[in-house]
Amino acid sequence: MLTEAGCKARRELLWERLPESAQWVLIADPRHVLYFSNFLVNPICFARGERGLLLLERSGKATLLADNFARKCSSGEPFVDDEVIEAWYDHKHAVINRDDALFAAVKKLDVAGPGAVEAEACPVSALAALGGDPSTDVGVGSIVRDLRRVKHEDELALMRQCMAATNAGHARAREVIAPGVSELDVYREVQSATVAAAGTPGIVYGDFRMNTPDLPKAGGLPTDAVFTEGNLFILDYSCVLHGYRSDFTNTYAIGDVSDRHKELFAACAAALSAGRESVRAGVTGADVYNAASKPLTEAGFPAIPHHAGHGLGQGHPEPPILVPASADVLRAGDVVTIEPGAYVEGLGGVRVEHNLLVTDDGSERLDGHTIEL
Amino acid sequence: MLTEAGCKARRELLWERLPESAQWVLIADPRHVLYFSNFLVNPICFARGERGLLLLERSGKATLLADNFARKCSSGEPFVDDEVIEAWYDHKHAVINRDDALFAAVKKLDVAGPGAVEAEACPVSALAALGGDPSTDVGVGSIVRDLRRVKHEDELALMRQCMAATNAGHARAREVIAPGVSELDVYREVQSATVAAAGTPGIVYGDFRMNTPDLPKAGGLPTDAVFTEGNLFILDYSCVLHGYRSDFTNTYAIGDVSDRHKELFAACAAALSAGRESVRAGVTGADVYNAASKPLTEAGFPAIPHHAGHGLGQGHPEPPILVPASADVLRAGDVVTIEPGAYVEGLGGVRVEHNLLVTDDGSERLDGHTIEL
Repeated sequence: MLTEAGCKARRELLWERLPESAQWVLIADPRHVLYFSNFLVNPICFARGERGLLLLERSGKATLLADNFARKCSSGEPFVDDEVIEAWYDHKHAVINRDDALFAAVKKLDVAGPGAVEAEACPVSALAALGGDPSTDVGVGSIVRDLRRVKHEDELALMRQCMAATNAGHARAREVIAPGVSELDVYREVQSATVAAAGTPGIVYGDFRMNTPDLPKAGGLPTDAVFTEGNLFILDYSCVLHGYRSDFTNTYAIGDVSDRHKELFAACAAALSAGRESVRAGVTGADVYNAASKPLTEAGFPAIPHHAGHGLGQGHPEPPILVPASADVLRAGDVVTIEPGAYVEGLGGVRVEHNLLVTDDGSERLDGHTIEL
Repeated sequence: MLTEAGCKARRELLWERLPESAQWVLIADPRHVLYFSNFLVNPICFARGERGLLLLERSGKATLLADNFARKCSSGEPFVDDEVIEAWYDHKHAVINRDDALFAAVKKLDVAGPGAVEAEACPVSALAALGGDPSTDVGVGSIVRDLRRVKHEDELALMRQCMAATNAGHARAREVIAPGVSELDVYREVQSATVAAAGTPGIVYGDFRMNTPDLPKAGGLPTDAVFTEGNLFILDYSCVLHGYRSDFTNTYAIGDVSDRHKELFAACAAALSAGRESVRAGVTGADVYNAASKPLTEAGFPAIPHHAGHGLGQGHPEPPILVPASADVLRAGDVVTIEPGAYVEGLGGVRVEHNLLVTDDGSERLDGHTIEL
């Protein structure tokens, strides 16, 4: 859960970035409503896919807008000064268009002076309910995305919960991966261990595919394919709790694998260490990419064919992006992945990954899984 | 997965309902983009929360708009005539606001004549990218919600997959529920069995709470509470696959329960039968509510204190709503829940539930779980 102090601090930072003329802003992206208020319609509930809106005013006031069923399906307690909750359903009368309730709530707002809506996500109907002309687009969505980079303490606490749950899934994977077990079996075991460690249901997604000499780049959700001796399994997965996520990887041997597999793994592990060593506030995404790729190329493997990592939080991928042409400069408070990988035709694929909190002089490792074949 | 024939048939039905003046419509609700095109950003993947848009033209043409990463994260193959996919991320260059890519795709559209956007979900930025004035709001969202009631064959096939997976979860629950087991343990076992039966990850949500004489109405996601002898566990859960869901219930005894518990269960089971018997095209939601409540009141329990059921598909609850003041008339092709419940202070709570396909002269039961304490 996010905290009231965190939500308020983020709202203050937003106001510092908005044009002085804006007296109010209607936040509409569900990720940003969460960021500023702790309100999120739980995606693991019957109201999944529904939403709320958040009116922020320069006075500091925050008002949540939602229908009554979306409101009660929040996965956290909202930290706002006021709520406009429109009764949509009462278990007595028929209903049709649920969105009408949300916009009826918007209609009750009394916004004064010039303001702005988050145009990327604000529905046309919400703008109409506000009375039409939405002042100019002040780029709220891009401002918030930039703010989202530097994580606050409450966000970090939530991400540490995701990490701890994901550590448990990796530990379980190591126990169950063996010839004869299916990808879907491993997914179910990893999911079960993750939920047990989290203490609550979360979303578990990622790469759950065995790779082979013919298909070294296999990735995506699990199939019913059964593991065969001598191949590799890249487990690159995330646990999402209350909108925030982990994202880290290890590669597991299925039975005995070849010395060449082990060399590939060692090169990736060296790349991971080198990438991690390069991380600190002030370096660029390209710097990290180059540092992480070097051990691979020196070992005779190709440079990392995908990002060497990316920002982590509510989306994927997020800035900073750790790629060859990235001028993104790392900031203290960024949470990033470092995830070197190599995929060799005729052999197989390996990827390993840490999640790091960037600090002024280095980084703090947030994941706690074992990087070992 | 939905089918090409199904998507095309639904698009034709939409055009029959739209004003003749509308030459195009921009569909924005992710549920409706799915409904008409089979495109859905998989909620169990890294792009969860991202979206596409769908331009439908009176000529019959359908065009999908998305960024390149949202596109590749579709959980099904889109059935459209054209795609405008904007390259957003290439693993080489840094990126910031992903939504910009979506609206860049919209900007490339060349829409002719008057048209409409789905105002409930269409972002203000998408409307701006289309060139501003969105013609009038023709109520697209409400029209589609009404169309969604009568299920097509491909939708039913998908819902039957959800049902089969949920049957497996109920069977597993019956095996594991016992004193000493926790709610979260049961959730994990039910989820694992559901995913195994589905053959792919799905969302598993619902009521996973033990109820007690003091808290007969306990509901919601599981906690770490441990089951105690003589109480009841209402398992009312859904499996969501490719946007569609099941939703059915049984109540399980934890160890030995009292005769009074058994009487309560028998009354609810009778209510379920009576509700089911009353279902056919042409009756109202109120008719079904009254029929399902009668066995409860006759047995000396209160009438159903919540809906007796509701339409089922992509949302919850959906029309028709089976409540006392509902004039919704059931249609052949509606899929509805029937879910009588009774919650008695000092005793406990019981709910049982079927999922039914409404037919002209009755219904077809879609769930296959055992209704038994």
